[in-house]
Amino acid sequence: MNGHGVYSEVGTLRKVLVCAPGLAHRRLTPTNADDLLFDDVMWVENAQRDHLDFVNKLRQRGVEVVELHDLLEQTMAIPDAKAWLLDRKIVPNEVGLGLVDDTRGFLETLTPRQLAEYLIGGLATSDLPGDFRSGYVALARESTGIREYLMPPLPNTLYTRDTTCWLYGGVTLNPLYWPARHDETLLMKAIYEFHPSFVGTSVWWGDPEKDWGQATFEGGDVMPIGNGVVLMGMSERTSRQAITQVAAALFANGAAEHVVVAGMPKLRAAMHLDTVFTFADFDIVTLYRAIVDGIHAFSLRPGERGNVDVTDHGTTPFVDVVAASLGLPSLRVIETGGDVYASERQQWDSGNNAVALSPGTVFTYDRNTKTNTLLRKAGVEVITIVGAELGRGRGGGHCMTCPLSRDAVKF
Amino acid sequence: MNGHGVYSEVGTLRKVLVCAPGLAHRRLTPTNADDLLFDDVMWVENAQRDHLDFVNKLRQRGVEVVELHDLLEQTMAIPDAKAWLLDRKIVPNEVGLGLVDDTRGFLETLTPRQLAEYLIGGLATSDLPGDFRSGYVALARESTGIREYLMPPLPNTLYTRDTTCWLYGGVTLNPLYWPARHDETLLMKAIYEFHPSFVGTSVWWGDPEKDWGQATFEGGDVMPIGNGVVLMGMSERTSRQAITQVAAALFANGAAEHVVVAGMPKLRAAMHLDTVFTFADFDIVTLYRAIVDGIHAFSLRPGERGNVDVTDHGTTPFVDVVAASLGLPSLRVIETGGDVYASERQQWDSGNNAVALSPGTVFTYDRNTKTNTLLRKAGVEVITIVGAELGRGRGGGHCMTCPLSRDAVKF
Amino acid sequence: MNGHGVYSEVGTLRKVLVCAPGLAHRRLTPTNADDLLFDDVMWVENAQRDHLDFVNKLRQRGVEVVELHDLLEQTMAIPDAKAWLLDRKIVPNEVGLGLVDDTRGFLETLTPRQLAEYLIGGLATSDLPGDFRSGYVALARESTGIREYLMPPLPNTLYTRDTTCWLYGGVTLNPLYWPARHDETLLMKAIYEFHPSFVGTSVWWGDPEKDWGQATFEGGDVMPIGNGVVLMGMSERTSRQAITQVAAALFANGAAEHVVVAGMPKLRAAMHLDTVFTFADFDIVTLYRAIVDGIHAFSLRPGERGNVDVTDHGTTPFVDVVAASLGLPSLRVIETGGDVYASERQQWDSGNNAVALSPGTVFTYDRNTKTNTLLRKAGVEVITIVGAELGRGRGGGHCMTCPLSRDAVKF
Amino acid sequence: MNGHGVYSEVGTLRKVLVCAPGLAHRRLTPTNADDLLFDDVMWVENAQRDHLDFVNKLRQRGVEVVELHDLLEQTMAIPDAKAWLLDRKIVPNEVGLGLVDDTRGFLETLTPRQLAEYLIGGLATSDLPGDFRSGYVALARESTGIREYLMPPLPNTLYTRDTTCWLYGGVTLNPLYWPARHDETLLMKAIYEFHPSFVGTSVWWGDPEKDWGQATFEGGDVMPIGNGVVLMGMSERTSRQAITQVAAALFANGAAEHVVVAGMPKLRAAMHLDTVFTFADFDIVTLYRAIVDGIHAFSLRPGERGNVDVTDHGTTPFVDVVAASLGLPSLRVIETGGDVYASERQQWDSGNNAVALSPGTVFTYDRNTKTNTLLRKAGVEVITIVGAELGRGRGGGHCMTCPLSRDAVKF
Repeated sequence: MNGHGVYSEVGTLRKVLVCAPGLAHRRLTPTNADDLLFDDVMWVENAQRDHLDFVNKLRQRGVEVVELHDLLEQTMAIPDAKAWLLDRKIVPNEVGLGLVDDTRGFLETLTPRQLAEYLIGGLATSDLPGDFRSGYVALARESTGIREYLMPPLPNTLYTRDTTCWLYGGVTLNPLYWPARHDETLLMKAIYEFHPSFVGTSVWWGDPEKDWGQATFEGGDVMPIGNGVVLMGMSERTSRQAITQVAAALFANGAAEHVVVAGMPKLRAAMHLDTVFTFADFDIVTLYRAIVDGIHAFSLRPGERGNVDVTDHGTTPFVDVVAASLGLPSLRVIETGGDVYASERQQWDSGNNAVALSPGTVFTYDRNTKTNTLLRKAGVEVITIVGAELGRGRGGGHCMTCPLSRDAVKF
Repeated sequence: MNGHGVYSEVGTLRKVLVCAPGLAHRRLTPTNADDLLFDDVMWVENAQRDHLDFVNKLRQRGVEVVELHDLLEQTMAIPDAKAWLLDRKIVPNEVGLGLVDDTRGFLETLTPRQLAEYLIGGLATSDLPGDFRSGYVALARESTGIREYLMPPLPNTLYTRDTTCWLYGGVTLNPLYWPARHDETLLMKAIYEFHPSFVGTSVWWGDPEKDWGQATFEGGDVMPIGNGVVLMGMSERTSRQAITQVAAALFANGAAEHVVVAGMPKLRAAMHLDTVFTFADFDIVTLYRAIVDGIHAFSLRPGERGNVDVTDHGTTPFVDVVAASLGLPSLRVIETGGDVYASERQQWDSGNNAVALSPGTVFTYDRNTKTNTLLRKAGVEVITIVGAELGRGRGGGHCMTCPLSRDAVKF
Repeated sequence: MNGHGVYSEVGTLRKVLVCAPGLAHRRLTPTNADDLLFDDVMWVENAQRDHLDFVNKLRQRGVEVVELHDLLEQTMAIPDAKAWLLDRKIVPNEVGLGLVDDTRGFLETLTPRQLAEYLIGGLATSDLPGDFRSGYVALARESTGIREYLMPPLPNTLYTRDTTCWLYGGVTLNPLYWPARHDETLLMKAIYEFHPSFVGTSVWWGDPEKDWGQATFEGGDVMPIGNGVVLMGMSERTSRQAITQVAAALFANGAAEHVVVAGMPKLRAAMHLDTVFTFADFDIVTLYRAIVDGIHAFSLRPGERGNVDVTDHGTTPFVDVVAASLGLPSLRVIETGGDVYASERQQWDSGNNAVALSPGTVFTYDRNTKTNTLLRKAGVEVITIVGAELGRGRGGGHCMTCPLSRDAVKF
Repeated sequence: MNGHGVYSEVGTLRKVLVCAPGLAHRRLTPTNADDLLFDDVMWVENAQRDHLDFVNKLRQRGVEVVELHDLLEQTMAIPDAKAWLLDRKIVPNEVGLGLVDDTRGFLETLTPRQLAEYLIGGLATSDLPGDFRSGYVALARESTGIREYLMPPLPNTLYTRDTTCWLYGGVTLNPLYWPARHDETLLMKAIYEFHPSFVGTSVWWGDPEKDWGQATFEGGDVMPIGNGVVLMGMSERTSRQAITQVAAALFANGAAEHVVVAGMPKLRAAMHLDTVFTFADFDIVTLYRAIVDGIHAFSLRPGERGNVDVTDHGTTPFVDVVAASLGLPSLRVIETGGDVYASERQQWDSGNNAVALSPGTVFTYDRNTKTNTLLRKAGVEVITIVGAELGRGRGGGHCMTCPLSRDAVKF
């Protein structure tokens, strides 16, 4: 037991995990951005400045913020942890036969900080010093895309929300949809296994050392909203194969009693549930109606022999199903603001991707002025994050935070 | 020992594996074709007719032809084999928790033939009879893309070349690049493990039950050309991580002494080596110059302690490297025929994707009339396959055949 | 007056214009197909064979078939016509300053047949003989896409339906949506102005020598169904700016009394109205429900001072609006056949793109076996066209025919 | 004669035309951005702030800056000018028959400022007040894409460089490549014809009231570098058909003696010459080597009878051809800075798109820190523009400025 646990979407945030922009984003170019799942390149120095400002605002309001490079550095300072991780990363399937010894040799010369930088930022063939270069390097340089790398860059670590989810008193280690993101979860496992702050964590489900097939699960689709309920968006990235397994694991552990599945419409803009729907207070949600109106809701509840029972809510609006699951007569809804142009623009710019500091206090991007105004008129305190650079990866404050400790709320 | 083995690209073909078009191709639509890696939909009945004609022509010339649905049916008639495969396919990660028992229950009611049809053709939620439908089915129906299926369709089985490769006296069970194709190799493993014709096969490398990470390998890039040499295209789909491992395994088993790596240019048209370069006789190749001129060649040879040594051939033309590897002064080259328009069109229509019956006798698509004429003028006997439908998946005779037994040639 | 006129969609077809595949399709490659608006390349010789078979079947059933290359050859044999067309095609804006004289000089050496071939098939810089090549040719060769050509290829002439529309007793000369198709209408104007068979034609609207801005109009969206009614699909390619102008022109000339506008859903598959909806008998239509259900219908009728009045049919189904416009209680509907996969596949393969020979007799592609069977069960005689090659441009029998003379029907 | 004229790329800038972001950019959404030729949406208020800062910096350094909305407002205050422009914009081909009178009626109620806003920002059907709405409006609302508009938005006016080019003592009114941009030139013609500041301008070539076919020309490809030389990029957007006509017109008017054509490689990143090559001093250029190395150079010079002579420079590097044209032994070259990742990122972020204030003083985006540092080390004064929002349309300072008056330089 290490004091972690997330009991709501809006209760007081005590501790949170973030990841600063860095080397991985310096590797992004118009040519490789698609492969690395980014829409655009960013000005890394300014993104770092804006991210740091976000972190400082969190800290000034009393939140303990831990950063992924720091955690990984501390973990890599533990010899067993370093050996465990490098034994899994520096293998023929990843670096290529013949480069294993040299790559491992080079990495062993690094400080824990430098090692953490390369683990997240990627190790290019050109990063290997001359002493560690054999004839194999030519072969690697001629490979295509991320196969050129000895360790591929992981720029999506910026979105710590996706990789692991604290759901009440335990965590899931998520098999992410895109192969280019799989190693993010392996880094997190190293931290959860070896870092002293995380020893003793209850893992509900997931293990990056196994192949999960169609069962993929991303935290952007998952919200432990309290009252024993978890929302799960069923989307391109989060599959029914995973949702039902996680629900069964939560039920078996007594961690939750009810999962509300949001069957997302089959549209590109409907990437994660939190890109169109987040909480701003215990009874306030901000949402993008054009997509949320197309959600088909289901309920999962504990069934016999470890199975889960499925209820199809048919045409009942998703927002009503969520309200009922919390025992509330209704939720107050703040839609993406402005006319038809402005609301589509703001959803794109993560306008509904709010993350709460406490009930009625949220962080959002500065650029979504119309939605922010509507939230403020509803009495919500809105603290802004500069989104000019950070927003280019199509994720906002909710995506960039993985709460480790958050209080429950009263309904 | 079961008599299989492939000792060249053009020696007399004794036995070959193909897969007829069927249910999987009836599932292809303009909407899902991309996900299933097809460019276009095909008229299945005519594709079957043209494929059958190809098979008959092979048989009339003395080749033993085995067909994948047949092999799988014979394998599924073996209780242990059926249990082994269904234990791996009908799991929560694939069909979804709560659908495991019903799906397995339904499949157990089927004949081996019916089961083989669904294993290759895919099992849709709508295929489950009422007796086997629980509340979970609604959840599956609302999923996106191939997650709707209980078993996804495998239309690329048509290209038996890719999934497994006979390289001299043994076989590789290939980890394919696209996740949508992974299960093809699992079906092949069931056959190799349990079908009486394949008992005792030497497996050089690969196992669909393991995760191979970046080490992906597809038979369209691989050619055991004789003289202890294997050509391997290093492409988007076949990675250096796999190539070096397979080379080391071949060297360790004494199966080959030299791997020539064709570093393919980073172009969409350069999918597999066999889409731009195949053999028509022991010293004749047909190739698409616009891409082959961009190949960067390397040689891999046995090194110390199980490693492989890499030689970079720099600017030496790939064709010259191949000729030298066979001890020939040069190769005779037949380029894709016609003017700049015609040659680009014919490469696209698998014009260079010839498969040899014996030295100097090949199968190609009928539509590539200009390349076929050039081959004939060079003394090669060309037997044509109707490509109007079969060619829509962008693969020709070489892609559609997996030789199981082929003689060596003299150089 | 020259005896042309189209008074219905299904009355006896007397005379029709088609265009055989040829040089323009030999220029299509995977690289340029997008620019030339084709999805795929075709085997031109077989496409020609299948097109000839279609023409022969029409002729055997008593239809007079005229072919575009032939008409253009006959037109180019008229000195004034040739001068008129070359004065408009061989100008600095098209061939480039400095190539005008040489290009014109070369074209003047050709027979009318050769000239017609290049006018439709395109004139590449490499087609210019040495005597007609100046320093400018190097500049042209380095240009991109269709700017390399001195006259661009016009492969979409295959779809004679789009370029001009006979609507009752007169014709429209259509401004086509894509700039790459504009010159098709110029060729047709030369024929209508100069060819003896067409002298005296009433032109309702359109002139390829003017710029029509947003007012684009394509025959695939237009159907003179009789009873003074014309259907017009409002789509990406056929705009309200054109539709209202054509309606006003028809009303002003007393050629029609009622235009039913089919507001097509904003989907890629909804290209032209005739890709999802055609007539097979006076009261039978074949349609693709998934798209036709999304059509929003309007009626245009003569208004004051040359204007047209607009009636919004709201949620009334398009098929009901069409039936009422013909004074019929209802239409018999034959949907695209087969399950969800088959119907989507068949719509893609032009399954609803039937063209009638007479009431209850239609031509369709052979590959849409399920829809063809449903039509036959409804008593429609279905004559098939081989679609393996012709269908690759995504157009069927309706697209490939421009009726010049067709009888009215009784309702 | 009105004092305008541009005699170099780097001589003292006296007067320049810009266009502030505004209503047109508020209309941009992820759905329509492609149609409007933008890669991304922008935060309009911040883009306006950053643009204003750019304008202020220009003014503080003594440049007279005129803004397009202002010029258009002043022009629309002239009754004849307003009538001229509305007679050309509010026609059936653009707004649709039946909406002409109402639309014109509404626009006549506006102030010149409001009218200028809609002319640039677009007029949506929802902008029409109730008094001006007939049944036709329903038809417009159901149209697709920019056909919904009564006047389409023109967000690319931000890039004033493209629309008209001052080349020494006169101007070209450019036919732009994309139909969605054609009306930009019409607005400019209204200004040049009627605005008192521009009366008497010599127009070398171009007229938006004519159809120029393949002869398209964009200012981003055009640079009057002095010494009687003009550089013209031959690209997707600027064709040989236009280049040769403009060259002939310049030669005929004695405005220039030599055009150097930069035959751009056929790559997406090679959009305009000024995205990869601009001048920072009379003998300093900043360029992106990966593309500039692929440029094939030609020279055009006056020929006989109004024609131009073409010289093919073969493999001579473009930079050397340019240096020689200026009578310089060589040019000093500042490449896009940083490693392979950084330079590709900076080219994408308009890193080479500098605009000079005077010899050795340029404006660039702040985000291209590495290229800016290299320019500074070479002694160039670099003034930065905030590019976080403005840069999202993929144009920098050079694209956003149309010099109206700029001094010559000495070589």
